[in-house]
Formats: sequence, structure tokens, C-alpha cells
Amino acid sequence: MLRRDAFDLPEGVIYLDGNSLGPLPRRAEAAVARAMQAEWGAMLIRGWNEAGWMDQPDRLGDRIAPLIGAAPGTVTVGETLSIRVFQGLAAALSLRPGRKVILTEAGNFPSDLYMAQGLIDALGQGHVLRALPATEIPAALTDEVAVLMLTEVDYRSGARHDMAALTAQAHGVGALTLWDLAHSAGALPVALTRCNADFAAGCTYKYLNGGPGAPAFFYARPDHSEITRPILAGWLGHAAPFDFAPDYAPGPGRARFRIGTPPVLQMAALDAALDIFDGVDIAALHARAIVLADRLATGFEAVCPDLRRLTPMDPARRGSQIAFAHPNGYAMVQALIAQGVIGDFRAPDILRFGLTPLYLDAGDIDTAIERFAQVIEGRLWDDPAYRTRNKVT
Amino acid sequence: MLRRDAFDLPEGVIYLDGNSLGPLPRRAEAAVARAMQAEWGAMLIRGWNEAGWMDQPDRLGDRIAPLIGAAPGTVTVGETLSIRVFQGLAAALSLRPGRKVILTEAGNFPSDLYMAQGLIDALGQGHVLRALPATEIPAALTDEVAVLMLTEVDYRSGARHDMAALTAQAHGVGALTLWDLAHSAGALPVALTRCNADFAAGCTYKYLNGGPGAPAFFYARPDHSEITRPILAGWLGHAAPFDFAPDYAPGPGRARFRIGTPPVLQMAALDAALDIFDGVDIAALHARAIVLADRLATGFEAVCPDLRRLTPMDPARRGSQIAFAHPNGYAMVQALIAQGVIGDFRAPDILRFGLTPLYLDAGDIDTAIERFAQVIEGRLWDDPAYRTRNKVT
Repeated sequence: MLRRDAFDLPEGVIYLDGNSLGPLPRRAEAAVARAMQAEWGAMLIRGWNEAGWMDQPDRLGDRIAPLIGAAPGTVTVGETLSIRVFQGLAAALSLRPGRKVILTEAGNFPSDLYMAQGLIDALGQGHVLRALPATEIPAALTDEVAVLMLTEVDYRSGARHDMAALTAQAHGVGALTLWDLAHSAGALPVALTRCNADFAAGCTYKYLNGGPGAPAFFYARPDHSEITRPILAGWLGHAAPFDFAPDYAPGPGRARFRIGTPPVLQMAALDAALDIFDGVDIAALHARAIVLADRLATGFEAVCPDLRRLTPMDPARRGSQIAFAHPNGYAMVQALIAQGVIGDFRAPDILRFGLTPLYLDAGDIDTAIERFAQVIEGRLWDDPAYRTRNKVT
Repeated sequence: MLRRDAFDLPEGVIYLDGNSLGPLPRRAEAAVARAMQAEWGAMLIRGWNEAGWMDQPDRLGDRIAPLIGAAPGTVTVGETLSIRVFQGLAAALSLRPGRKVILTEAGNFPSDLYMAQGLIDALGQGHVLRALPATEIPAALTDEVAVLMLTEVDYRSGARHDMAALTAQAHGVGALTLWDLAHSAGALPVALTRCNADFAAGCTYKYLNGGPGAPAFFYARPDHSEITRPILAGWLGHAAPFDFAPDYAPGPGRARFRIGTPPVLQMAALDAALDIFDGVDIAALHARAIVLADRLATGFEAVCPDLRRLTPMDPARRGSQIAFAHPNGYAMVQALIAQGVIGDFRAPDILRFGLTPLYLDAGDIDTAIERFAQVIEGRLWDDPAYRTRNKVT
């Protein structure tokens, strides 16, 4: 399953930040160049039909669908994840008109919380965003809840919610669910259909390696699609976009969740990135990530026993990253980066490492541990000269 | 002002559809390849800071600002035009809470109408979209109107509204304005500040040549920016995006209208495309487009007297395109395309030709007229064998 040759990774770098931005797939360069020269340049406006640009949103959606346990015809691609969260929330609220609560986790990714706040303010219908610690969510699932909005895998700790159980519980009180799959898609097996999830959205620039600012995807359960009147009623979601009719008529199913003109160059890069997943068993990929994560955790903790591990131990309850807290976390991450081991830091004190078995193996993890040992044993992160030289601020 | 060498145009093609999709700027290919290899590939996650990806939305906004008569610091780039129209409408409604009418033109671009319809439905606050013929708009500007939403240049006829007069009249009754500049930006001098326009949005893939699905831009008058609570409250618009705070706090001014992660590859292409405008006098460019349009109109009408010209004669009242109606319009456009003259068709019967003096001169127009004469004199569009051969459906 190691497909390191599929990526253009800098020599000597151990890249543990694919959970933030996946690396460059070699094929993406040629794919984008082709989209520019042979399509945009040569076909000009005809590219919309002849190069299939107009079909990209749904065609790429159908490529992503099997990675997230969704049926063909239920996923579309375009816009940004923030927009997709907004769209999913608005859809859910419109389907539960009598209910006023959006239930979420207090530590959810901020943009999800912000989009909910912006929607609630604008609607002015008395909705509230109830953000609770994960442990309090089950008890808070009452018949006041319109939608339970959760990010399946926490962007800091890597803790993973039980999508099947929480969706079932939400449905038990008549609530809908909106799952943010930013840290799930391409990292672990997601089963939207089996879990009976209502709405889901995710980005494609993390584990799917679609490139910086790659478009988002959106899933709606087919029965919801057919009755949702989209708040973001874009021309691309119209039943007949090229009729240029004055009144909005939603397209069938997922089509109505398309919004604006597709970003063709980003789509071409994403298309090439998805080639890498052809034939990859996502469950096996995730199992391998768990092994790598444990190897890294054991090694790092041996080197620096006062790291506090934030990621749960149960493989079923975590994504493909490992996170620690440490008061000197920021400086440590900077020093590691200077040593060619790229992880990242999240305020206030979190060191975060993504494990991506498509381009990482046990040898890489051992190298990362060795370099971490150099950082810690030399207290490199605490040495003013080292900090100055390596711009550790 | 002719900069044909800046574009990678197919040999022998007369491209009269730059009002739909601008052609490939030669520099864009290298710029995107660099963004992929030297930035995404080599810098990986550090590209957000080291390559300036995070600053792209505002930096590109500042490059577009002078083309639309806006001050530095007032324009940002990202998302799609449909999303930007939604954002502008919601902002305007929030600033005029007592008023229920969105006034627009019946022939406005459908996505603008659809986004208004979606917003109105979702708000459920009794707003109405009043879509009237252009001539009836001044009389309909009453103190019920929250916002006047117009596309400055009509996508079919090319007729141009008087932004200064209509904005002043809207302000006279306490209404705000939202201008769609899709067919204005890069084509003609726009004076947002001088006209005292409230909000504006536009796309960058037409006259600005940013590429298929290039991101949109958004302008808000600075005094509105400071008091608007955005409906689309994305993380990139937060006052401190990397603090990952749980509550939304809008960034200063235009920053709050940023939404999701910027599409870095599309931004790189757009950046290179904007280089072409360095040193270009937009008023002179537009004057030249008017001359070319008149040349084309005169020639085409001489060849086919039953073309009905839809574009106004007054140069101040039109954009950089010329449009005709003809019952055989669709077949004529297809036959012209088969002859290498690329214009486009808009239902029900409109032939549409964009005049873009950056890569078109009088000789090109004369060639287009000659080929149109061949089409008409040979009744090529009416010849079944020709139609079959050239896939004229």
C-alpha cells in the first residue's frame, strides 16, 4: 500500500502533516498542465462540454463516494468546506422547522461553529448553537435538536466519534445529522449509507491530497436531497442550467447542491490525486496508520516522558493522527521542522502528527523518533542560538 | 494595447467568446506549474506562509481594485460569484432590517435571481424579489426597497446600466445597491467608489482571463464592512483565524468577507492573468472594444440584414460585446464555430460576440465578417450535409 513514488516529496523530509495538507501527487502536475494547455488553451469555451468540465463536480463526487461509504450519485464536489457546512446546516434546519437547537461539540472545528453562528444570526428564528463536551452530547440529544453537527475526527486530538451510534441516537429523537469528514475522507473507512447519515461534507486537501484550496465535497441522503430546497440556489444546481430560466427549479438529487462554476484547475489536480486511491483498501490503510501512530507515540514518549498523549488508545476511536500536549509544544514542533520532520502545532499546546501510510512507513517513523531525540536531548528548542538560526519564534 | 502574444490562442481561431471564458495567458501555465512544484511540492504546509497563499485573497483583491474603481483594502477574492451575490444580498438585507424588497431586473443573470430566491425562502421573513424590466426600475425604487441588485452589463444584450445614477437614486430612497460586475471587470471602466456603490461582486474568468472556475471577487463599501455581520462566517474571515477560537469575531473590513480556504492553483493562474492588465488603460480598452463591436455589427448586418441588433448604440450604455437576435441564431453560431469564429448562443435566439481588444484587432473582425459571409451566402447553417459534418445540431 506504500505509494511513495506517486508523490513528489522533498528529499529527506518526513512529512507528518498530511492531515493538514497532503503532498503533491506526481500525476497532478501533468493533469493540471493538460487541463490548461489541451483543454483551456485549445478548446477555450468548448472545454465545458468537450473536456467534461461541467461534469467534474458529479464525476469527482462519484470517485469520492466509495471512500466514504456513499452510493454513486449522492456526492458532489465544489466550493469550500465552510460553504458546504452552511449548506448542510440550512438543509437540516429546513427539514426540521419546529426545532431550534443545533447540537455540536465544543471543540468542533471553529469554521463549523462560525458558519452555524452566521446562519443562526441571519435566520433570526431563535435557533441556538449548543456546543458541549463530547461526553455530554448523548444526554443532550432531545426532541429540541434539529441537527447534530459533528466532525467525525477531532482536528486536534484525533478522537473519533461513533458515527453509527450517534446517528442512530439522533434519529431516535427525530434529529438529523451533519458529519464533517475533513479528517476522515481518505484516512479511514467511513460508512455514510450504513450509518444512515443525513448530510456530510469534507475537504479534499488533507488525506485526499487534492492540493491547497482543493474543492469540498457534499453528501445528502437521497431522500433528503429530493425534498430540500437549497439555501444556496446556484445556477449549477438548477434543473436546466443552460435554459437560463428566471425561476429556480432544483436539479434532481445531489445536482441541486451544486452551486457555482467549478474550479476546473483544482478539479484536475484532485482527479489525479484520487487515482492514487484506486485499488487501495481504506480499512487496511487506516489499520496501518494506527500501527504507525502507536510506533510514533511510543518512541516520542520514550524520548520525552512528559508529553501528554491526547489521542485515545482504542483504534476504533481515533483517526490517522496522534497528538500530544506539552507546554513547550510550539518550540518543539518548530525545532522538529528545522530537522526535516514536519508536524504541526495547534494552540494552546498541541503537537500534532498525521500518519499517512500512502507515503510513510515504519522507517520514516523511526527517523522521526531519532530526530525528535536530537531535539529533546540537545534541548534544541530551548537553545537561543538554535532558535535564532532556525527561526524558531 | 494589443497583447496577443500574452495569450496562447489556437492558430486560425477568431475568439469572440472572451465574455464567457477568457483565453489562456501564457504566463499562467508557468505560474501554476511553479505553484505546484516550488510551492505545494517543496514547501508543503509551509506554503501557507512562505509562499503567501494565505494572503492571496486580499493581495489579488488589491490587484483587481484599480480595475473596478475601488480603493486598496476593499476587495477580496475567493469562492464563486453565486456565493458572493448571496453574501452581498444578505449583508444588504441585514443593514436594512425593516425593508422587504430586493429589486432587480427581470433579465438579470439567472444565478443572481436564484441566489436571491434561496435566501428569501430560507430567511422566511417576508422578503420579496421584484424583477422588472430595466425601464421600470427607476419608478420602482421606493422606501420599501432594501437593495437594488443589478448586473451592470446584461449578459445577453450587452446593455449597460448607469451605475452612478441608479446608485444615487437608490440612496435617495434609503436603499442599498449590489452590483454584479461579471461582464464589467476588465472590460470597461467601473467606478465603485465614485458611484458610491455599496456592494459589488464579479467573476474573474471572463474579461480578466483567470481560467475556468477562477475565483470571484467581492467589494463592500468600507463603512458597511465595519458593521456587517457576515452570514457566511468562515474561518478565513475571522479576526484571528489561527487562534481557533470557538466564537466568531469578524476580521477588520473586507477580511470578514473571506470565507473558506483559498483555491491556491486557481489564484496562481489569476495572478498571472492580471499581469496582462499592468499598464492597460481600461477606458481606452473599452473605447477600442466599442470600435471593434461597431465594425463587427456593421459587417454582420451587411451580410445578413435580418439580424436584429440587441445591443444599444450609445457607447456609454453598453459593455464589450455585441448581440443580435435571429430565429436561426443557434445554427448560425454553430456554423461560425465550425469556421473558426467562436461566439456563443443564448436561448432563445441570441448570437453573442465578445470584443476583447487585448487579443483582437480590426483584421480579426474583418476575417470574422468574411467567414460569416461564407456561412450566410452558402446558407451553410441550413445545409443538412454541412450540419451533419460539423455537428450542427
